Amino acid sequence: MTEQVRTGSTPVIRDGILKCVPIGGYRFETGGWLPEVMMGYETWGTLNAEASNAVLLLHALTGDTHVSRGDSREDGWWDGFVGPGKTIDTDRFFVVAPNMVGGCYGSTGPASPDPDGRPWGSRFPFTAVRDSVRTEARLADFLGITRWHAVVGGSLGGARALEWAIEFPERVARCAVIAATAVASAEQVAFGQIQTQAIRLDPAFRGGDYYTEGSAPVEGLGIARRLAHITYRSEPELEIRFGHEGQGDEDPFGSSDAVRGRYQVESYLDHQAGKLVGRFDANSYIVLTEALVGHDVGRGRGGLEAALARAGSVEFFVAAVDSDRLYVPGQSERLAAALAGKPQVHYIHSPIGHDGFLTDIEQLNQVLRAGLFA
Amino acid sequence: MTEQVRTGSTPVIRDGILKCVPIGGYRFETGGWLPEVMMGYETWGTLNAEASNAVLLLHALTGDTHVSRGDSREDGWWDGFVGPGKTIDTDRFFVVAPNMVGGCYGSTGPASPDPDGRPWGSRFPFTAVRDSVRTEARLADFLGITRWHAVVGGSLGGARALEWAIEFPERVARCAVIAATAVASAEQVAFGQIQTQAIRLDPAFRGGDYYTEGSAPVEGLGIARRLAHITYRSEPELEIRFGHEGQGDEDPFGSSDAVRGRYQVESYLDHQAGKLVGRFDANSYIVLTEALVGHDVGRGRGGLEAALARAGSVEFFVAAVDSDRLYVPGQSERLAAALAGKPQVHYIHSPIGHDGFLTDIEQLNQVLRAGLFA
Repeated sequence: MTEQVRTGSTPVIRDGILKCVPIGGYRFETGGWLPEVMMGYETWGTLNAEASNAVLLLHALTGDTHVSRGDSREDGWWDGFVGPGKTIDTDRFFVVAPNMVGGCYGSTGPASPDPDGRPWGSRFPFTAVRDSVRTEARLADFLGITRWHAVVGGSLGGARALEWAIEFPERVARCAVIAATAVASAEQVAFGQIQTQAIRLDPAFRGGDYYTEGSAPVEGLGIARRLAHITYRSEPELEIRFGHEGQGDEDPFGSSDAVRGRYQVESYLDHQAGKLVGRFDANSYIVLTEALVGHDVGRGRGGLEAALARAGSVEFFVAAVDSDRLYVPGQSERLAAALAGKPQVHYIHSPIGHDGFLTDIEQLNQVLRAGLFA
Repeated sequence: MTEQVRTGSTPVIRDGILKCVPIGGYRFETGGWLPEVMMGYETWGTLNAEASNAVLLLHALTGDTHVSRGDSREDGWWDGFVGPGKTIDTDRFFVVAPNMVGGCYGSTGPASPDPDGRPWGSRFPFTAVRDSVRTEARLADFLGITRWHAVVGGSLGGARALEWAIEFPERVARCAVIAATAVASAEQVAFGQIQTQAIRLDPAFRGGDYYTEGSAPVEGLGIARRLAHITYRSEPELEIRFGHEGQGDEDPFGSSDAVRGRYQVESYLDHQAGKLVGRFDANSYIVLTEALVGHDVGRGRGGLEAALARAGSVEFFVAAVDSDRLYVPGQSERLAAALAGKPQVHYIHSPIGHDGFLTDIEQLNQVLRAGLFA
């Protein structure tokens, strides 16, 4: 359910319901231009009179604005972490979760219409993490928030949070970077390349202009998701859950047909792929993956250390998942060591890998309640 | 260079030169039938009068028969390990390296012609690791080898070696299983699924019958290879070699075009993909990947322990690469613990991952010279 909010109106604030606001024309970091950008976002709680209790929550690659249930009927992806009485307590804080520009959950993305009503498709500008930050800064202006109590994100959301602290240090009091890095790793780039190539290989992709063609590149997007999902989990978790078992009464062995019975792990990945292609736009997947692999806080700022020095006034919180093989803990350690305060890296202990930042975030409750959200 | 060898002839034995021999019609494990199977293989050294010095070397997924240079002008993939005076000393041993049935290096595979001269393509039978073993047993018969001094393989070659010891324990005195498992892991299955799906998604695949169509599914095969190659290396190796650097003067950042400049790691994977698609058939890639993911010595034998018990007379050598994330060392440890002799797992210490079984095999020289090849 979407409600349009116009600048100057007095919006009816409902928790966990998607809102959209136009923020005007926008020039992307690398030169692209959109004459009108819409920002989709959800909020929870109430901004206090001093506008000092606002918290910005930033989603990961395929995440959305629905962090917490609020007044909606749908569960949020950080329900146990964000809500009334939770660690990010919506009775105390005004929580804002925007959809990243280029995405497909309310903000302008490749599926959005151009001024002539045609989807942008292949013409959508190259989008960087800094474009996420700069468009969200305009949303903050609209909401009357000059400085966030905290900016919090995991994975690509963590990259977005870190860029906020560096791009607008005067607007960020505290910053939590969870299962994320200061610069995309070679392996993140490598997996990203394969994923975008698989989408582009799908004949239904049609160079990105498929919206009016009656079909979408769901096969390619499904392959991308399968690969991504493996990298979000750990090898032992897959082994313990699935081993070499066939799915139900399917026989994965002995057929020379293209379509054979499946192993359990294949069925599981099919399910993950099916869920994603039903809810996510392939062009948005490419745009946000490019933002992810292009992430480098040092770019154009004299390198990593000079970039991080810009955020010297920000209080950082860094966390990693101990079994994460995509955003390996060493990357979080390197980030923390390069920050002015050299904060300790806090660990989520989970056997499942990267996705532990979603499933086991509550392990950080105690330290966050004593720290960023005291 | 290929020379046809016919049963009953006296072949001119030249080291490291591909030979082919017909082994007759063959019924595959799961029911498929080929009226005539050709086995491609290379040999080095001379079989002694007692036929007691024969060593069988088995290649991995995209490997070939050219293990050692021999009389050819091309380097072999285990040159430092196999040759005159080497650990597998071709002055002492008669070394045989067959191409796995279903492959594309001399043995009958999907690109081979049916009796009417049409490539088998999509009609090629489902091939299991046991079909590798059973066809190679016929090659051994042809060569006059009733019992191997040793059967040696790494990765899929290690699975083939292990199946030899279980299927024909009376024909295998010693068996070296390197960077391999008794049963494919869930993750190996998962990565395999993505790779075969990428090939099938390529419009040039045409359901597997592309040989007469003027193009091959090189894009899909290239994606499969990129993914496989990442799994063959380690995350730290990629990070140290490539980091987030652009390739030469290419700028990977800032283009919204489909074709942008590349990161070094992307260029590296492009190179790996390009090399493979120039030398490997996509259908063979699928057939051998299916064999790999279907690998389970316990299938139809009452489970893992009963299967391994069949090989109780065989002297085993088990080795793993310490940084291997595809054939994780724990799998080798589990295999060794389940074998009758409970052999120690020997380790190749390498930072690069699974490929260490190719690049750093010479670390096993000392222990193998004191053991299997004393």
